[in-house]
Amino acid sequence: MSEPLFERLTLIGIGLIGSSIARAAKVRGVVRHITICDESAVHLARAEELELGDRYCGDAGEAAEGADLVLLCTPVGVSGALTKRMGAFLKPGAILSDVGSTKATVVGEVRPHVPEGVHFIAGHPLAGTEQSGPDAGFSSLFESRWCILTPDQPDADAAAIAALSRFWEGLGSTVDIMDPDHHDRVLAIVSHLPHLIAYNIVGTADDLETVTKSEVIKYSASGFRDFTRLAASDPTMWRDVCLHNKDAILEMLGRFSEDLAALQRAVRWGDGDQLFDLFTRTRGIRRSIIEAGQETDEPDFGRHHPKD
Amino acid sequence: MSEPLFERLTLIGIGLIGSSIARAAKVRGVVRHITICDESAVHLARAEELELGDRYCGDAGEAAEGADLVLLCTPVGVSGALTKRMGAFLKPGAILSDVGSTKATVVGEVRPHVPEGVHFIAGHPLAGTEQSGPDAGFSSLFESRWCILTPDQPDADAAAIAALSRFWEGLGSTVDIMDPDHHDRVLAIVSHLPHLIAYNIVGTADDLETVTKSEVIKYSASGFRDFTRLAASDPTMWRDVCLHNKDAILEMLGRFSEDLAALQRAVRWGDGDQLFDLFTRTRGIRRSIIEAGQETDEPDFGRHHPKD
Ligand SMILES: NC(=O)c1ccc[n+]([C@@H]2O[C@H](COP(=O)([O-])OP(=O)(O)OC[C@H]3O[C@@H](n4cnc5c(N)ncnc54)[C@H](OP(=O)(O)O)[C@@H]3O)[C@@H](O)[C@H]2O)c1
Ligand SMILES: NC(=O)c1ccc[n+]([C@@H]2O[C@H](COP(=O)([O-])OP(=O)(O)OC[C@H]3O[C@@H](n4cnc5c(N)ncnc54)[C@H](OP(=O)(O)O)[C@@H]3O)[C@@H](O)[C@H]2O)c1
Repeated sequence: MSEPLFERLTLIGIGLIGSSIARAAKVRGVVRHITICDESAVHLARAEELELGDRYCGDAGEAAEGADLVLLCTPVGVSGALTKRMGAFLKPGAILSDVGSTKATVVGEVRPHVPEGVHFIAGHPLAGTEQSGPDAGFSSLFESRWCILTPDQPDADAAAIAALSRFWEGLGSTVDIMDPDHHDRVLAIVSHLPHLIAYNIVGTADDLETVTKSEVIKYSASGFRDFTRLAASDPTMWRDVCLHNKDAILEMLGRFSEDLAALQRAVRWGDGDQLFDLFTRTRGIRRSIIEAGQETDEPDFGRHHPKD
Repeated sequence: MSEPLFERLTLIGIGLIGSSIARAAKVRGVVRHITICDESAVHLARAEELELGDRYCGDAGEAAEGADLVLLCTPVGVSGALTKRMGAFLKPGAILSDVGSTKATVVGEVRPHVPEGVHFIAGHPLAGTEQSGPDAGFSSLFESRWCILTPDQPDADAAAIAALSRFWEGLGSTVDIMDPDHHDRVLAIVSHLPHLIAYNIVGTADDLETVTKSEVIKYSASGFRDFTRLAASDPTMWRDVCLHNKDAILEMLGRFSEDLAALQRAVRWGDGDQLFDLFTRTRGIRRSIIEAGQETDEPDFGRHHPKD
């Protein structure tokens, strides 16, 4: 990239996502200067050790001062309070955005604290792993992934949306625009429900008396371990997601439970045809995901079998 | 391997598991001669094309004649009928075993048809992928994996168990012995419940009206796609597993549903502490699975991100 898209970027929160943005923005020359803020002194010091930015500070207000682009990369529960703290420091014309996994409530909590003249456009990069903290990030995280922007005002500044889109494209992503409520319903099914189900099944296995925990671990490659990846994700982040996307999550959980009750009934009554129908119908979806370039075609996720 | 462990091996069913055994047994010199039987003329012809065996036949009785070791590698629903068909052809001293994913009902259905002098010892290699058919198999499938044998009679022939154990060790596996009922409870949690949950969630997503199927596919990398691998497994095999391990599966489904109801309640009432507790507790299990050498430590399963 010849000219940086933004002069000064401020990242609030330097965990998996924040530190990946810092790395990618540097490698790809997307911004000239990066200020990093984190409430954790340990993470902030680690970010400095890793040379992820140019300036480091513990206070969000101070960090936001003079920035052209400020990105909230913290758990969604603190977005409102952080914006309130930064408000007076944000310069007119600056763009404020975030990377939070839920959008409608975040927009509701951030919007009242956005000063006149500052462009707030919420966002969500659909990229991540089950790991967290500044060491977990890597510069290619956003390559070939989607980033959804959710402008919430009919008169949102088109130039600001375009600039923020170019930023994410600069990190290797493709940008989609949708409204915050639709984002939350889509993510409830493609991300939040899968994580809750994964957490739940791992919890169920952990509670059994007739099968020991060591047996669950030993024989986990038979299917169970696939769920443990999602269930190892950051607890704070996921608590906040549940609290902030309650309605859509409850809707999807309700449907899932209804379908599960029907499946349970088919098992109880030995209804082989109904089971066969469901098990056939679901195959096609994986095929489509592979064809859409969203998944590897190799058996077992192309997993490197450990200790071979 | 210097001397083959068995002279003549017969494989009934030449799908993923049968064809992997054929390939591994040949590569590792574990048997001298392989007879292959499949009810599907297409699979049988394909096995011959791939040179997986030395003799090919469509009839199980004929195929079993003269064999030292006969392995049923078909869906569990047909094990009883196949044993009945083979009964008269099995030679005294031969070992009959299987690879079915459920054990108690299989033992119940096979045992009555096992002739005097033939050693029947049921088994289950904990190895597989989501793919099926003779082309899906590969010779390293059983390496560093568990194979569970479930002898069902107190006076089961120790020499036969030892010989069958050496066979699986010859393919690279480690053998465990347990009783059929305990096997079925262990597998219900580590394999059957995960598969049913995966089938169910993919089915739920497929039925939505407010989120389109193309959105589910497009954004699937946010968690959903992890479930599609298990939900792409063979429908016939999984129908049979559900019909054959009904009681243990219903028990696990019941527990899972209870836990899910509690989780749903925590989301509804915004009980952040309960959510945080569950999401923290589940992290440790993945760590243990990785430490036990049953899973890769790389983020995202070490997936090769496609179309990068
Ligand atoms: N992980 C994913 O897969 C993923 C994907 C897309 C979007 N997201 C979203 O990205 C955001 C960050 O997630 P992450 O995975 O990067 O989490 P993470 O690795 O835990 O990083 C979050 C960082 O923010 C810090 N922080 C928390 N509260 C703060 C505050 N009030 N002021 C300043 N810093 C604060 C945390 O410090 P402490 O650890 O000391 O609290 C931590 O260093 C979340 O909103 C999440 O929904 C995550
Ligand atoms: N897949 C796994 O991950 C896995 C792991 C461990 C154990 N297992 C067990 O292994 C067994 C086989 O599974 P698989 O994955 O190898 O399935 P597969 O790839 O579908 O192979 C099964 C083969 O058996 C044939 N067959 C079906 N009924 C038959 C009959 N009456 N006589 C002769 N051949 C018959 C099938 O032909 P058609 O296709 O024409 O029916 C097919 O070629 C099952 O019992 C399963 O529970 C599977």
